[in-house]
Amino acid sequence: MKEYYAERVGTMAGGELGDLMRLVGRDDIISFAGGIPSPDVFPLAELKEITLGLFENEPRQVFQYSSTEGRNELKDFIVEFLSRRGVNTSREELIITSGSQQALDLVAKVLVDPGDPVLVEKPGYVGGIGALKSYQARILGIDMEEDGISIDCLEETLKKTVGKERPVKYIYLVPDYSNPSGARLSVEKRRKILDLAGKYNFYILEDTPYSELSYYEERLDYIKKYDEENRVIMLGSFSKFFVPGLRVAWVCAPRPFIELLSRAKQDADLASSTIGQLIITRAGEKGLVETQARKVREFYRPRLEAMGRALEKYFPAETSWFTPRGGFFFWVKLPAGVNSKELLAKTIDEDKVAFVPGTAFFADPKDGYSYVRLSFSDIEPAMIEEGIKRLGEAIARYSG
Amino acid sequence: MKEYYAERVGTMAGGELGDLMRLVGRDDIISFAGGIPSPDVFPLAELKEITLGLFENEPRQVFQYSSTEGRNELKDFIVEFLSRRGVNTSREELIITSGSQQALDLVAKVLVDPGDPVLVEKPGYVGGIGALKSYQARILGIDMEEDGISIDCLEETLKKTVGKERPVKYIYLVPDYSNPSGARLSVEKRRKILDLAGKYNFYILEDTPYSELSYYEERLDYIKKYDEENRVIMLGSFSKFFVPGLRVAWVCAPRPFIELLSRAKQDADLASSTIGQLIITRAGEKGLVETQARKVREFYRPRLEAMGRALEKYFPAETSWFTPRGGFFFWVKLPAGVNSKELLAKTIDEDKVAFVPGTAFFADPKDGYSYVRLSFSDIEPAMIEEGIKRLGEAIARYSG
Repeated sequence: MKEYYAERVGTMAGGELGDLMRLVGRDDIISFAGGIPSPDVFPLAELKEITLGLFENEPRQVFQYSSTEGRNELKDFIVEFLSRRGVNTSREELIITSGSQQALDLVAKVLVDPGDPVLVEKPGYVGGIGALKSYQARILGIDMEEDGISIDCLEETLKKTVGKERPVKYIYLVPDYSNPSGARLSVEKRRKILDLAGKYNFYILEDTPYSELSYYEERLDYIKKYDEENRVIMLGSFSKFFVPGLRVAWVCAPRPFIELLSRAKQDADLASSTIGQLIITRAGEKGLVETQARKVREFYRPRLEAMGRALEKYFPAETSWFTPRGGFFFWVKLPAGVNSKELLAKTIDEDKVAFVPGTAFFADPKDGYSYVRLSFSDIEPAMIEEGIKRLGEAIARYSG
Repeated sequence: MKEYYAERVGTMAGGELGDLMRLVGRDDIISFAGGIPSPDVFPLAELKEITLGLFENEPRQVFQYSSTEGRNELKDFIVEFLSRRGVNTSREELIITSGSQQALDLVAKVLVDPGDPVLVEKPGYVGGIGALKSYQARILGIDMEEDGISIDCLEETLKKTVGKERPVKYIYLVPDYSNPSGARLSVEKRRKILDLAGKYNFYILEDTPYSELSYYEERLDYIKKYDEENRVIMLGSFSKFFVPGLRVAWVCAPRPFIELLSRAKQDADLASSTIGQLIITRAGEKGLVETQARKVREFYRPRLEAMGRALEKYFPAETSWFTPRGGFFFWVKLPAGVNSKELLAKTIDEDKVAFVPGTAFFADPKDGYSYVRLSFSDIEPAMIEEGIKRLGEAIARYSG
């Protein structure tokens, strides 16, 4: 059958990340691979009550189809949620998606022809790169610094595209505590990127999964807040700071673009899960979503700090890392000569510890052999210490 | 922004069906447009108990991510479900999708390059045609007869493709009570199509949403049952005979193809809703899915018959239709000179009755101006009679 595969299969990501995720559930392995939220912090009692309420109050809706663009009451809650964060929008500028991953897919589907240049953080989110690859985008990485992407690198890259046949369509950004780098984009850079978008005529895909997961500092304004030229397509998700399994996320963009996404979503999955939308809606109306946004900050901070301490204590001097102030990840550079994929093959078998090799986060995997991503979100602090100890010893052994 | 749209946007379906679906909820309109199952038949009490059980027994799983390919226990239930229907398969040959619409999208994504010929029923399912259009397939319609697609038309079409640069990749079939025609594919034709697939080297996408909704007769064997050459990609869904809002469906195909779909699904939405998968799993284990498969047959048959009687009584002699023996739809030919889209514009405003114009079900809309699709699934028999009366009078008025 292979001769019948579409050309895009050749550029589609392999199933490596999926393989790795299967390790998450194995009891004998300490896995820093997941990057998934912890069920320890889910508001289960409240969610149970809300779900029961659905059966009492709207039983005929719970299992029926929703509309393609999503339920109006949920959109109304998102309008309020965004308004409290400085972004004024309306139902008409929102569409509900089946997780932000679907939004990444749909945006690429309606904007990217094979060979179109799209800018991504380097390193950047594996699922964002995957969606772009699956539509045969030409992915151009923009170097990451501690305060987000390098503006110099961005401008240099943009200058090279001037006058070329194919313009840069958009830049994909995770401004807050990005995956995997942990970097937060500074306010100055947010404004500068918006200026450059106007000057070079490209769009900004602003993805905000970790924006609520700020453990030490005030939220910065979304880029969307300054968006006077309608250049920002904003994505938001309940997965990381509330619960992920309901698969509820949203896109906020000008109405004509929402209509386009709606046409694409109708072909993609008709509509998102109704019970998921209803649960989030009622949780939002009861204030539970905002309560949870505060609670998770307290919950994850000790885990971040446990990992930071353990890295200091157990990792060889030849390693280095960035200490994030939010999100789920440490991004670690290995000693020269240690290959992260080879290291993983050994640590799974011999040390019973797992992580994601840096290769997953670059359009060109070879850029990532010296890096690993370590997630602290779904492991208790004592296990974090034990796992980092094992991993530090393994790195020392294999680099020696 | 339009100059940045991808080329495929030009062939993507318009949002017409979405617009029409919004009429479903309007109290002042009798809508035969929906084609959605009736909440009157959903097993709400049992579903409530099952959902409560999830909070008791597996609270930490309910809101967490699932794996991309779906939960093993759900696959185990589907293996049994299919085994009772003569198809032997295994976990490895299954992937869970967010509704069958996602399966239609993913299959097109991994098999269709722009311009590739794909065969569809004529008339055929709007969502199947939409998915193909969104990947710029060259859609070739195969005429429908009362016992499914015309084998003569199929052979003629295939002969024309011999020696052409681009081979036919697959045929998309809804063998049981197809949407919109209501036709069921005969056993002889099922076998013949499989023979032709071997002879002309194409694949069969067998979609079975209405297979349980057989109101007068025994289920026929799935094409998949006779599939010795691994030519059938089978889709199944819980939406029409169980509940649709959980968005749980599946694909059964050889393992290498499932792996390919899994890579595509990871880019598309990471994973399907966990609570939806868990509810269907527990319902399956308790026997509720099979009980419901029997119950819906009794529930929908009187609605089908009410529509049949009303059509006989109220529709002008110049109309004709096929009386289905299962599924949700009557497919009606209008009197010469009546345009279904123009008719709809009038009946919504003046007669307060809606339907889907036949144009939606053809790759080339002009083939459908003389037809309308009428769904009887979500309307009580008395309202069916009233709506058909209004519509019959409207047709008489506009054709006179």
